Amino acid sequence: MHMQNEHVSELKIAYIGGGSRNWARKLMCDLALEPQLSGVVSLYDIDGGAAGHNAQIGNTITDSNEAVGKWRYEAATTMEEALTGADFVILSILPGTFKEMAVDVHAPEKYGIYQSVGDTVGPGGILRALRTIPLYVNFARQIERYCPTAWVINYTNPMTLCTRTLYEIFPGIKAFGCCHEVFSTQEELSAILEIFGGVSGVERYEIETNVKGINHFTWIDQASYRGIDLFELYREAAQKFDAEGYRASKEGRATRHYGDWRWPKPLHFELFGRYGLIPAAGARHMVEFMPHDWYMNQTDPVTLKNKWGFELTTVHSRIEYQDKQIEETERIIAGTDRVELKPSKEEGVRIIKGLLGLETFVTNINFPNRGQLPDIPEGAIVESNALIQAGRITPVHAGELPLDLLNWVVRHVYNQELVLKAGISQDYALGYKAFVNDPLVAMDLKSSKALYEEMLEGTGLFRL
Amino acid sequence: MHMQNEHVSELKIAYIGGGSRNWARKLMCDLALEPQLSGVVSLYDIDGGAAGHNAQIGNTITDSNEAVGKWRYEAATTMEEALTGADFVILSILPGTFKEMAVDVHAPEKYGIYQSVGDTVGPGGILRALRTIPLYVNFARQIERYCPTAWVINYTNPMTLCTRTLYEIFPGIKAFGCCHEVFSTQEELSAILEIFGGVSGVERYEIETNVKGINHFTWIDQASYRGIDLFELYREAAQKFDAEGYRASKEGRATRHYGDWRWPKPLHFELFGRYGLIPAAGARHMVEFMPHDWYMNQTDPVTLKNKWGFELTTVHSRIEYQDKQIEETERIIAGTDRVELKPSKEEGVRIIKGLLGLETFVTNINFPNRGQLPDIPEGAIVESNALIQAGRITPVHAGELPLDLLNWVVRHVYNQELVLKAGISQDYALGYKAFVNDPLVAMDLKSSKALYEEMLEGTGLFRL
Amino acid sequence: MHMQNEHVSELKIAYIGGGSRNWARKLMCDLALEPQLSGVVSLYDIDGGAAGHNAQIGNTITDSNEAVGKWRYEAATTMEEALTGADFVILSILPGTFKEMAVDVHAPEKYGIYQSVGDTVGPGGILRALRTIPLYVNFARQIERYCPTAWVINYTNPMTLCTRTLYEIFPGIKAFGCCHEVFSTQEELSAILEIFGGVSGVERYEIETNVKGINHFTWIDQASYRGIDLFELYREAAQKFDAEGYRASKEGRATRHYGDWRWPKPLHFELFGRYGLIPAAGARHMVEFMPHDWYMNQTDPVTLKNKWGFELTTVHSRIEYQDKQIEETERIIAGTDRVELKPSKEEGVRIIKGLLGLETFVTNINFPNRGQLPDIPEGAIVESNALIQAGRITPVHAGELPLDLLNWVVRHVYNQELVLKAGISQDYALGYKAFVNDPLVAMDLKSSKALYEEMLEGTGLFRL
Amino acid sequence: MHMQNEHVSELKIAYIGGGSRNWARKLMCDLALEPQLSGVVSLYDIDGGAAGHNAQIGNTITDSNEAVGKWRYEAATTMEEALTGADFVILSILPGTFKEMAVDVHAPEKYGIYQSVGDTVGPGGILRALRTIPLYVNFARQIERYCPTAWVINYTNPMTLCTRTLYEIFPGIKAFGCCHEVFSTQEELSAILEIFGGVSGVERYEIETNVKGINHFTWIDQASYRGIDLFELYREAAQKFDAEGYRASKEGRATRHYGDWRWPKPLHFELFGRYGLIPAAGARHMVEFMPHDWYMNQTDPVTLKNKWGFELTTVHSRIEYQDKQIEETERIIAGTDRVELKPSKEEGVRIIKGLLGLETFVTNINFPNRGQLPDIPEGAIVESNALIQAGRITPVHAGELPLDLLNWVVRHVYNQELVLKAGISQDYALGYKAFVNDPLVAMDLKSSKALYEEMLEGTGLFRL
Repeated sequence: MHMQNEHVSELKIAYIGGGSRNWARKLMCDLALEPQLSGVVSLYDIDGGAAGHNAQIGNTITDSNEAVGKWRYEAATTMEEALTGADFVILSILPGTFKEMAVDVHAPEKYGIYQSVGDTVGPGGILRALRTIPLYVNFARQIERYCPTAWVINYTNPMTLCTRTLYEIFPGIKAFGCCHEVFSTQEELSAILEIFGGVSGVERYEIETNVKGINHFTWIDQASYRGIDLFELYREAAQKFDAEGYRASKEGRATRHYGDWRWPKPLHFELFGRYGLIPAAGARHMVEFMPHDWYMNQTDPVTLKNKWGFELTTVHSRIEYQDKQIEETERIIAGTDRVELKPSKEEGVRIIKGLLGLETFVTNINFPNRGQLPDIPEGAIVESNALIQAGRITPVHAGELPLDLLNWVVRHVYNQELVLKAGISQDYALGYKAFVNDPLVAMDLKSSKALYEEMLEGTGLFRL
Repeated sequence: MHMQNEHVSELKIAYIGGGSRNWARKLMCDLALEPQLSGVVSLYDIDGGAAGHNAQIGNTITDSNEAVGKWRYEAATTMEEALTGADFVILSILPGTFKEMAVDVHAPEKYGIYQSVGDTVGPGGILRALRTIPLYVNFARQIERYCPTAWVINYTNPMTLCTRTLYEIFPGIKAFGCCHEVFSTQEELSAILEIFGGVSGVERYEIETNVKGINHFTWIDQASYRGIDLFELYREAAQKFDAEGYRASKEGRATRHYGDWRWPKPLHFELFGRYGLIPAAGARHMVEFMPHDWYMNQTDPVTLKNKWGFELTTVHSRIEYQDKQIEETERIIAGTDRVELKPSKEEGVRIIKGLLGLETFVTNINFPNRGQLPDIPEGAIVESNALIQAGRITPVHAGELPLDLLNWVVRHVYNQELVLKAGISQDYALGYKAFVNDPLVAMDLKSSKALYEEMLEGTGLFRL
Repeated sequence: MHMQNEHVSELKIAYIGGGSRNWARKLMCDLALEPQLSGVVSLYDIDGGAAGHNAQIGNTITDSNEAVGKWRYEAATTMEEALTGADFVILSILPGTFKEMAVDVHAPEKYGIYQSVGDTVGPGGILRALRTIPLYVNFARQIERYCPTAWVINYTNPMTLCTRTLYEIFPGIKAFGCCHEVFSTQEELSAILEIFGGVSGVERYEIETNVKGINHFTWIDQASYRGIDLFELYREAAQKFDAEGYRASKEGRATRHYGDWRWPKPLHFELFGRYGLIPAAGARHMVEFMPHDWYMNQTDPVTLKNKWGFELTTVHSRIEYQDKQIEETERIIAGTDRVELKPSKEEGVRIIKGLLGLETFVTNINFPNRGQLPDIPEGAIVESNALIQAGRITPVHAGELPLDLLNWVVRHVYNQELVLKAGISQDYALGYKAFVNDPLVAMDLKSSKALYEEMLEGTGLFRL
Repeated sequence: MHMQNEHVSELKIAYIGGGSRNWARKLMCDLALEPQLSGVVSLYDIDGGAAGHNAQIGNTITDSNEAVGKWRYEAATTMEEALTGADFVILSILPGTFKEMAVDVHAPEKYGIYQSVGDTVGPGGILRALRTIPLYVNFARQIERYCPTAWVINYTNPMTLCTRTLYEIFPGIKAFGCCHEVFSTQEELSAILEIFGGVSGVERYEIETNVKGINHFTWIDQASYRGIDLFELYREAAQKFDAEGYRASKEGRATRHYGDWRWPKPLHFELFGRYGLIPAAGARHMVEFMPHDWYMNQTDPVTLKNKWGFELTTVHSRIEYQDKQIEETERIIAGTDRVELKPSKEEGVRIIKGLLGLETFVTNINFPNRGQLPDIPEGAIVESNALIQAGRITPVHAGELPLDLLNWVVRHVYNQELVLKAGISQDYALGYKAFVNDPLVAMDLKSSKALYEEMLEGTGLFRL
């Protein structure tokens, strides 16, 4: 790594899960569009062919004229090779196959339990965690061995438990988790600012929000743009749409689009009404942290749409999406298609710049609790604001949660600690203790036991 | 108050709820049987007649030859009169009438929700708390005014919230809560010691147990008698009865009786199997802290018996019991019946002696958390061991709870804090936030709202 | 207050101590040079004439062409008048007269105890606190009454105890303390960056430092400029000047000047060598927190210079300075002189802008500990970084101090709590308990008692 | 180990430092006088001959008719042999020779610094700790290896750091420290009870005291006997003797003796007057925790008597005492003298009985802080009450210390943590950071450096 004239060259980024057709390409674009950085990206994947394709694609991008950031991409054959000498490590894997994911998401349906994503908490999230944690135990050990001072960015879900595992195994690790869920809420606040405050064109990162909670169950209790109180505007929006019956018909709703999201979001206003805080993650994620009887039960078993305005992410839809990506990759490799160079909405590259001293800013990340959420146990991975500066991440005090919300957050924090222990020790009896305590597992003990065992079996954990 | 030759005379005990036909008589017996104490008991009750009857009965007892402890009983016409000059205050009231209690216990049944007692947590416990807390706000103020240095013993349920309210209003109060639930478990351990350890005749207070939790949801993680590890014997008992299918038939079960309790207790063994700790309160109480789907759902709607071996306490049965007590009282007043002088199983008088310096011992009480349960928020009322000595109660370190249990305890602790605030401010919208977070409120949001409003209405809280 | 086009008008600033000839003028300049703000400054002072003069001067400044920020100045006749409607309150008073200050600073000299400033800790700081705290009790009450939601900026010393008193009396106050000591260290780091890193022209606020400690005893454990590690450069500087014998002679030292400060600072390098952290306040302040035997004892009784390169601030020099200021004020009022419009080095106006949403930044302030210094008791006023944003100040996690330094910080924190209680209750026996525990009070008990009583007498506290 | 009829046989006690001529003999007596225990004591000492003599003496005692407790004594040739199979381990060693102790105690005198004991804190205590900690690192490792579930009783000074080291190295150890200092204060309270309360014959362990602090700097804030408030009687005593000028002359003082202690103790009354708490350790220990200027400076350099009524423990006097003990041992071995069977005033055997379930009681021990002293960092070794029961020690909540005292306690706690790190890592530069922060090291930095190096040299630590 070498810094001169505010340009950092000779960086090395290790990308574990480097065969990714989605996230890795986003990184390539962001790096190509960033003039202040250059170096090498070492892609490692258990699917070596996919990593090789990505290296080829990456180098093609870097060779294009539009690419102002010049990077060399290489496919590493071992994790050791990728990690050795790395300044940054990106962890972004898909834990398991679609077969296992199908169990995560759909097995509970026969017990009347729906999950909108199934990768964080709930039956699916817990099973996914149980098979991901041993992988992360290994990542932590390899990082400790080959690049102990590198910054480690996790993108894999379950975000909290992946990051927590890294710290449990290698307490000196410099790891954090990045998630884009809050960004959408900041975009929503920007839209509300335009409609209710008359100020347009504000980028989502110019919106200042105080974020608090755990990944995918985050809340905002203060929001402003240059002294304009967005919290009050949000209240106004909630009241207006409540009065106008925004739930009535799809057509009756606001038709404005801001990029790829639609507004207004009825569940967010509902939760705002109940808790007085702005929900900061997507509805599909938020509802999975709460009792099934509250919102998930309003899912149509046929259409898999929830009357609160979101759809379940089926594994089928994920497979379709992947198939499209594979085809696209083939076309790119064949030269009949190309990667469109556009900025992703991810923040990884900006944070890398921050940690290199090129920019100082505040953003929300997933990080061990050092008191930023004073009511949550120390060391739990929480999502809240942190100051990103040269060589350091320092959490910003986020403050208390209302007691009724705190209750749900703490419930999941304790449960995740149980899953952590179960995952590390591969003690599935212990895993059940967490499983049965999850608010989506709303069934009698016999059923929960049967479901848990079926899911263990179906995801191959009994065979571990 | 005057101490001489290890006898304390001229004590004054104020008894709020002094018309009680049950608890007050137990106190009278214990005082009459205690040679080291004497003084006056001032009985105050909103039912002045009942207090007057009790004064009469108390003085009759004291006049009997068997009574070695000589006390004068008087009915106070105001709380001020009762409290002024008191060394000890006993709070033991019935908050509301049977009409309200019927709502507490039975209103949720139409939503399929059963409660075995309905006075602690769950829909009934929360409603009962909402109407009791304002009364305790008043008690705390009067005590601060008229006898701020008196020791205050609470017997009223919900135990935790009554005691918590006293400290919230008058932080300098010297209050604690006494509950006999753990004593039964100690008797059970004594029986197990006899059957499995061959040591008989051991009194329950000779059994040393490490108690931790919150009232009616307490757990024992260490138990011994003179170096004999009762925890191991309990494990042995659990295994044996598990093997012998102790749930099979009532007749097949052990037929031994120890006083008024029956053994073995299947739910206790079930919970021991799940959590590895001995449940320390009765099954009827323990189950109310857990999801309805776990145990309460196994209640027969007709017989109101739960297949885990306990019966629901109906309000009907309470009315019958009270009618009997009223008749008995009339006979005693008329002189055709008399109070039988026998020790109660309560510990109040022993603790009074302890605080006067006549005895030093360790027992479980309900007291503000000063770190004795390190994972529970400071100031929450927890139940664990304390050292009782002249003029002071000092909590003994109880230690951690297993994570899965801690989760349930903390859930109720936070919820009780919400109920406290709702009760003090009489803010019933806030009360609903606690209501909907209770694990027995296993229903959709619309139903829980309807039930809550019906219960508020039925218990007169809308009219407050 | 009214915001439009990123200009905030109709602001009201209340200035308590508004007769100040130094700080108030700095504020006037900074406001006049700030184009985004306008409004009224209401000056209140027990010396009403001085406040009147300042109002006149302020309005003259605002009338000048150079003044881009337009403010109206008025002298309030009561504190109520100044505070009512205020958006910001500035507290900047001189507690007591020079007669009392002479006692603070010089009375201990006859016991061989020297103080370089005598306004923070040590005998002088404690006495000053004891007479200032009652004034701040009053300020807190008036602010609670007349402008409870205003932001309150304290400039008065003892900084920690003034700010602490405000929170003790009115816990809902939005107060913080500003001190410029750290800024000089940032300027020093900028100079080191130039000399050792070859980067020149860097403003002190571009230097990123992690500040931790209590006011006037602050430490930096991380410092960087755009990815350049200034901590390493500082180490290099310390080693170089250590090798070159920088203490030898004044002439031998570097002669470069950066504004009004001189470099290098031997005591800073000495402390850096001992503790491994960069001392962040001036030497004159730092040494007063440590035993007299360590550094203060190396003071020449005649010249009052300390061989570590700093001079004692005598009251005589303060009087001379004040006399000059009074003359200057008279000339300004008379129109024969004028206030030179130049930016102060204070940060008050920048923070006001930040709190109004015009700028977001991180700086060090004095604020109640909410966990930003995890080893220091909650609620103590600590100095560390905070994020300044629209309507809120959120502390940034500062992290642990080395144990040997922590020991000194905690010692003063506890001692200041004692002084707080003594000051509020005006219990001077309690005050002595703090006095005797101060590390500068290095004498036998009889002497410390005599000195304390002499100082109480001399500063009129016995007459309170 | 075998329990039957409330007698425990086949116990194994490992005694490290088993050649001790003082403490080991006390244990032998206490064991011989205790009818409920029997087994084997395995004596290990680096002076194998001394251990052999003690084994011989111990077996002679056990053969005597008066000995109701029958034990076999053996001299172990390795620590492994002693520890293997042990139920209890006693650690009671003399760290270093008199040569080193002479440096500990007397080297500081040339700098005008006196120490009354020099084995706990102060220059001597720190040096002693630095050479003892490595020995305890080894003890902890051996115990973890050979008897990890044994209870470990430490008698060695510095008590706090020896016990702390055990936990640092083997966190699962079941260790605690026993010290008899508080017992003398309880005897003093018994004497005061007789003189001022008219109740005589009360044993010291019947006095209930709430002890808090760290070893040799402990304080009592509540004391009673059967409801009689001894705290009030102590106040009365302090006032009376203050009025009577109890310091005037030795003859003028009370001449009553209670066993081997003399009453009244002027320094205790002085400290009681200053802090409002009863000092619980001997004056010689208490004063070493406070600045030299306060009390230690009142030492006559010739007689080594302190005008507060205590004498310094010189190494000369220790050598004389040892010589006498060696002669006595020789006589005992030769059969011309015998060990007088009388109970020691130590509590080790009583605690062993408690841990075996033969007795439940509360006493003060040195134990890791689990919140019993809420203001002291978790894990620090504190001295306070604990409940001794079958198989467990549970701390009793001791509560807060007054702020001015807390300041001194915390100062030593932090300093001891520094010494711990220095001792474990044998990093003597780190050790100096603790040394210079000790309140007895009242000298300039150059002197403290010189003294420290001289002491390191003199105690052979440079040669380690």
